[in-house]
Amino acid sequence: MGFLKTKALAAIGELMVNKIPFNHHLGFEFDSVSDDLCIIHFAMKPELVGNYFQGILHGGVISAALDMVGGTMAAVGVLNDNPATHISKLKNKLSKLSTIDIRVDYLRPGKGKMFYAKARLLRTGSKIAVVRMELVNEQEMQIAVATGTYLVG
Amino acid sequence: MGFLKTKALAAIGELMVNKIPFNHHLGFEFDSVSDDLCIIHFAMKPELVGNYFQGILHGGVISAALDMVGGTMAAVGVLNDNPATHISKLKNKLSKLSTIDIRVDYLRPGKGKMFYAKARLLRTGSKIAVVRMELVNEQEMQIAVATGTYLVG
Amino acid sequence: MGFLKTKALAAIGELMVNKIPFNHHLGFEFDSVSDDLCIIHFAMKPELVGNYFQGILHGGVISAALDMVGGTMAAVGVLNDNPATHISKLKNKLSKLSTIDIRVDYLRPGKGKMFYAKARLLRTGSKIAVVRMELVNEQEMQIAVATGTYLVG
Amino acid sequence: MGFLKTKALAAIGELMVNKIPFNHHLGFEFDSVSDDLCIIHFAMKPELVGNYFQGILHGGVISAALDMVGGTMAAVGVLNDNPATHISKLKNKLSKLSTIDIRVDYLRPGKGKMFYAKARLLRTGSKIAVVRMELVNEQEMQIAVATGTYLVG
Repeated sequence: MGFLKTKALAAIGELMVNKIPFNHHLGFEFDSVSDDLCIIHFAMKPELVGNYFQGILHGGVISAALDMVGGTMAAVGVLNDNPATHISKLKNKLSKLSTIDIRVDYLRPGKGKMFYAKARLLRTGSKIAVVRMELVNEQEMQIAVATGTYLVG
Repeated sequence: MGFLKTKALAAIGELMVNKIPFNHHLGFEFDSVSDDLCIIHFAMKPELVGNYFQGILHGGVISAALDMVGGTMAAVGVLNDNPATHISKLKNKLSKLSTIDIRVDYLRPGKGKMFYAKARLLRTGSKIAVVRMELVNEQEMQIAVATGTYLVG
Repeated sequence: MGFLKTKALAAIGELMVNKIPFNHHLGFEFDSVSDDLCIIHFAMKPELVGNYFQGILHGGVISAALDMVGGTMAAVGVLNDNPATHISKLKNKLSKLSTIDIRVDYLRPGKGKMFYAKARLLRTGSKIAVVRMELVNEQEMQIAVATGTYLVG
Repeated sequence: MGFLKTKALAAIGELMVNKIPFNHHLGFEFDSVSDDLCIIHFAMKPELVGNYFQGILHGGVISAALDMVGGTMAAVGVLNDNPATHISKLKNKLSKLSTIDIRVDYLRPGKGKMFYAKARLLRTGSKIAVVRMELVNEQEMQIAVATGTYLVG
């Protein structure tokens, strides 16, 4: 991977995850990104609890994390298809990226101390990207999976 | 509607929306509920912004609000099918209600000052409920729609 | 509605429904189309049965009919956004229209003598269209609902 | 795997795929099933064509095959959770199995001579099963993926 590509990937993590106010509010942090896989992580906190009988993550936190990591992976798809020589040009493209739709399947209760949302590309093109996501806890237990369609063109 | 039913509906709003930590964190508030329609609302705040280029709601806020109102409507379906004479019995049933899956379609940018998430039942039964949701702003512009399946039995 | 628009709408019904081999195989027939609503219909036949214990429609027939009517409605969206003065130009656009994704919710058993698949536009744009569909029987009982995203650009 | 389990798995293939009229109509045939994976296959035929400009599979054929193999895999989940000592008892359970909802993502045009629909379990329980499916052609090109929720209890 060339220097520019590495720099662009780092910019995606910064622009798509760390700079977004809502992510700060929930504690989502950029973890890593490559051509194949993007990961963000966040720690359990009292304010992320949905079911207070069971002390588990709110479904909305789960879908937010999955949408976030899915959109970031779609941005990598944009980067792969449009090798950006200028970060400013990439910023412009990323500012227009948006989620068209997402399906989330909640498989197991959101119990854990640390959570990892991971995304992989299913399809990229000049107009849309389709991404598969999953949420696991620190013991690699799969809590939810999702599929998202993103407008990238 | 009898006195007990009215009281039970009020309990659903309290138990399913206002008492949940994540909802406080985002500013989601119970608005109203009937046999046909459940509404929650929340105001725009800087920490709910996803796309800071455009100053619009994060997709995760949208899906969280839609899942929240959908689950509350599913709880009303539980109430309709199991007329609860004791609030404690209802509480027990509601503590087990969970989202199986949800699909969210993001139709327009989340611009506005106040947002309303609304839900209507498509199907109820002894095991699952299927609910349709939508998010509109204070000008009734439709921002997103969703369909959710909930485990109620 | 002008003469050309009427002619183009009729062409959509012919091109998108009646000419497709699979639709003949299942008995799907174009019913009607307007700017707001597209309808196709088909009769119950032994070869469309999925659950032979109950004699009801196969889920695949339901999703095929819903996808078909959804795509036809998306084509109307293309027409609305690109007033075609030449049918040949419209044909070219329609030949590229494709389903990105679809969610189908099966609400009730597919019992009936005649079925109607109906579609309404949720969103249109230069690149994608989002459509809501439903399947009802001859007694207007709602058997399934769906949401589809179509690539139109 | 015991003799009864093997016999029960074979019965699932026969009951869930080969005996269904719609499957005969489309040419779907049971291929193989194990605890982890279920496969059905079908050959390209003129009557399965959707886009006659391009000679590719109709989206409805794809979603029908994916729903079919998903439901069959859900049946295996039922079998795993309820070791059936009598085929008649299993038949009774399977006759009540139904699709709650399905999402299909169409990734690439349905070109090929032979198609394989494959399913794997994501989650099983006493009430619902969640299944992941994919359609590939004879060259293992992935044409579509899907996620389905099935009522099994």
